Amino acid sequence: VQGELSLGDLAVRFGLTLKGDPDLKVYRLATLSGAEAGSVAFLANSRYRRQLETTRATAVFVSPEDAPHCKVAALIGPNPYLAYALVAQLLHPTAAVKPGVHASAVIAADAKVAASAQVGAHCVIEAGVVVGERALIGPGCIVQEGSVIGEDTVLHTHVTLYPQSIIGRRCILHAGVVIGADGFGFASDRGNWVKIPQIGTVRIGDDVEIGANTTIDRGAIEDTIVEDGVKLDNQIQVGHNCVIGAHTAVAGCTGISGTTLIGKRCRIGGGVGIAGQLSIADDVVITGYSLVTASINEAGSYSSGMPAVESPRWRRMVARLRRLADKEK
Amino acid sequence: VQGELSLGDLAVRFGLTLKGDPDLKVYRLATLSGAEAGSVAFLANSRYRRQLETTRATAVFVSPEDAPHCKVAALIGPNPYLAYALVAQLLHPTAAVKPGVHASAVIAADAKVAASAQVGAHCVIEAGVVVGERALIGPGCIVQEGSVIGEDTVLHTHVTLYPQSIIGRRCILHAGVVIGADGFGFASDRGNWVKIPQIGTVRIGDDVEIGANTTIDRGAIEDTIVEDGVKLDNQIQVGHNCVIGAHTAVAGCTGISGTTLIGKRCRIGGGVGIAGQLSIADDVVITGYSLVTASINEAGSYSSGMPAVESPRWRRMVARLRRLADKEK
Amino acid sequence: VQGELSLGDLAVRFGLTLKGDPDLKVYRLATLSGAEAGSVAFLANSRYRRQLETTRATAVFVSPEDAPHCKVAALIGPNPYLAYALVAQLLHPTAAVKPGVHASAVIAADAKVAASAQVGAHCVIEAGVVVGERALIGPGCIVQEGSVIGEDTVLHTHVTLYPQSIIGRRCILHAGVVIGADGFGFASDRGNWVKIPQIGTVRIGDDVEIGANTTIDRGAIEDTIVEDGVKLDNQIQVGHNCVIGAHTAVAGCTGISGTTLIGKRCRIGGGVGIAGQLSIADDVVITGYSLVTASINEAGSYSSGMPAVESPRWRRMVARLRRLADKEK
Repeated sequence: VQGELSLGDLAVRFGLTLKGDPDLKVYRLATLSGAEAGSVAFLANSRYRRQLETTRATAVFVSPEDAPHCKVAALIGPNPYLAYALVAQLLHPTAAVKPGVHASAVIAADAKVAASAQVGAHCVIEAGVVVGERALIGPGCIVQEGSVIGEDTVLHTHVTLYPQSIIGRRCILHAGVVIGADGFGFASDRGNWVKIPQIGTVRIGDDVEIGANTTIDRGAIEDTIVEDGVKLDNQIQVGHNCVIGAHTAVAGCTGISGTTLIGKRCRIGGGVGIAGQLSIADDVVITGYSLVTASINEAGSYSSGMPAVESPRWRRMVARLRRLADKEK
Repeated sequence: VQGELSLGDLAVRFGLTLKGDPDLKVYRLATLSGAEAGSVAFLANSRYRRQLETTRATAVFVSPEDAPHCKVAALIGPNPYLAYALVAQLLHPTAAVKPGVHASAVIAADAKVAASAQVGAHCVIEAGVVVGERALIGPGCIVQEGSVIGEDTVLHTHVTLYPQSIIGRRCILHAGVVIGADGFGFASDRGNWVKIPQIGTVRIGDDVEIGANTTIDRGAIEDTIVEDGVKLDNQIQVGHNCVIGAHTAVAGCTGISGTTLIGKRCRIGGGVGIAGQLSIADDVVITGYSLVTASINEAGSYSSGMPAVESPRWRRMVARLRRLADKEK
Repeated sequence: VQGELSLGDLAVRFGLTLKGDPDLKVYRLATLSGAEAGSVAFLANSRYRRQLETTRATAVFVSPEDAPHCKVAALIGPNPYLAYALVAQLLHPTAAVKPGVHASAVIAADAKVAASAQVGAHCVIEAGVVVGERALIGPGCIVQEGSVIGEDTVLHTHVTLYPQSIIGRRCILHAGVVIGADGFGFASDRGNWVKIPQIGTVRIGDDVEIGANTTIDRGAIEDTIVEDGVKLDNQIQVGHNCVIGAHTAVAGCTGISGTTLIGKRCRIGGGVGIAGQLSIADDVVITGYSLVTASINEAGSYSSGMPAVESPRWRRMVARLRRLADKEK
């Protein structure tokens, strides 16, 4: 048991309407189907409403529309998923930072590590680095020359910050994240590639979360920028000189080529490819596995992911499209 | 020379029919085209049958159909590739584990590391971890609180197990694998993203192999599960609360979104995208670079990867499809 | 200020025609739009010619065609981007290697590390490894048994070289690169997967750059080969036994399946998928997000990336294609 909350408490704290006994207590979170007594669950999508009939949860966060179908105590509000997120944060608070530097960490003499920060085993903190108050640098992280890590930011394990990377406050960088590697820039000299020194850096705002093994390249001349509140999933690649606008969320395995500007509050699906030197407006939705090859100037939803069908049918689709195109040649 | 095997031995050991001298000896593996005397090669695909005519191998594993074309000694059976795998394991046995903990590793006082296990340089083994008999933890691995590693499992280098990860027996996790990072879960609060604590974990069965830089996220509430005998290639992303059924194989760069259930014995190609909250039946084949956006309820082969053609022809295909769709608007 | 160059110097050094005062000095690089006095910028693409009118740069590298539009000093030559690359290398020379092995690095007794090489904190250099003159092994790298690193090569952070990997001279391997993990090879034995030992290695030529978190698998029997001058971006996956021809460049997130041979001087876009056992000719261009399922025998440009459109229009395109294919069943 991580904690104990009464339904009355929850209703008051989150401004929800309670249908049920305010003295009932919940101790843990559960899915509707996996819940046992003492759990609180949620229904965020009416498509799964049938699960309300059989759940053994003590209480459920539901919308007003779904509430009549709830057989157990209901905590009713317009955004059940948000209510669930907030109670989950209450029941599972982030582990407290344990101030101090592990004996095996290698810290440059002139690095400034806040006394309230924690630096794990086998970390390397190079010259001129600043680690803010209550920051947590997990084991095996490497923070290179002149990088700055804001207050309350967490680097999990094996994170690399190349020199001069700037990370804001309350960020979370997961295992294997690489910030500030060289952008992919080469000039062609009669068949040989000549490297373009990448002299910009990466600046990441506040409240940014970056998933495992995601890579964000440093700028060629100016900086690559990730604004406040951006959420990046695992294994995303962000090219040099991109700007990702505030509160945009990007799902896993998406690749964004260099010098592309993405607006604020965009939602970009997984496996998307975005070509370079484009501009994407605010509030754009790009569905999974789409390819974006031209700028998008208006909010709205854009797609080109082709859904799989039975393989023989797919082969006919491809053949038909080829013949149609060849006919008009 | 890693070993020496006579053709007679091989025939008996693997139940193969030998056409040739049983006293001939082989010392090493080779491809048909690269073989020299003393090598054993294999022909798994009749398409390459012509190579039988010129190979310098001492012997070849072949199917009954291909055997008549073999000019050198033939080891004949229904599955030449399997025979090759088994003889390769004989000639190249896995290096023995050298029990002991490297002096530079940081091991929590209450971690239980089997005396027969090996822990490499610069590893971190946190509180409550259990490392099973003969497990090999390569250099630079980080095993976080409460994780369990089964007997005879190998973690190569720079592997991270987030807290409470469970890894079965005889697994192989390659360099840079991240198990148990937070799933990508956020509730929207008027344009801000509120983090959903990810309180499930990851449970991996026995005999699972996971390729370099692959990431498997921990569950949001319940666990992410990878069943026995699953084989995952490099740079795969598995979202929170997925279940991957036993003996399913997934090729590189594929992304599986959260809460998708994949059946047993599926074969999923490289670069595939699978949307979230889907269910894929047992024995499904998904060909490379397909996008799966709906559940698949029947075994069979599914596709949507579009093969490349000359760029001008491709542009005509796209233009033609657009016009056809716009006509009927 | 990293240095100071006069325009006259630059013109002489790079064989450019100067239109302007040869005594003017530049100190730093800039984009056309971000430039201030003392900066040199470049215009590589006439599409952005308008920026010449407002730039505050002291001088601009331009082509003869764009030169008449330049309001400030012009350094005129056929390849402004190359001129920029070269001057950038002058102004931002690579940091000098600081010879020596960090006290926390773990070096096998019989490893041969050149006295002029630098080995960073928490590195592991295993038995039989050779590290060439002036090589720089960044912190947290793991170089396994028998691997060889050529002169002047840089490994950034958390790079893993599996046993027997061969890296040429003047290479750059970015953070999280994994060279030589096992290829994805299994034989099927009545529903179980039997591992094929991967006994080849990886051989990388001279002047190769490999981006962050890219993985290159070792060969099954023979070696995986990356020839001289190849440039690989981030998060690329190269399967076992591939050969990538000299001076080929591959953009991020591309996956190349096993035993595929890619020619010389190819340019392969981001997010491309290339099936296994194919052969791609020299001088082939593959545009981003294409899927290659058959060998390409002629130089030229190939595509299959489908550009995103508004989602409702896209749904009509998919539906239309399905109906057309189903009609002729």
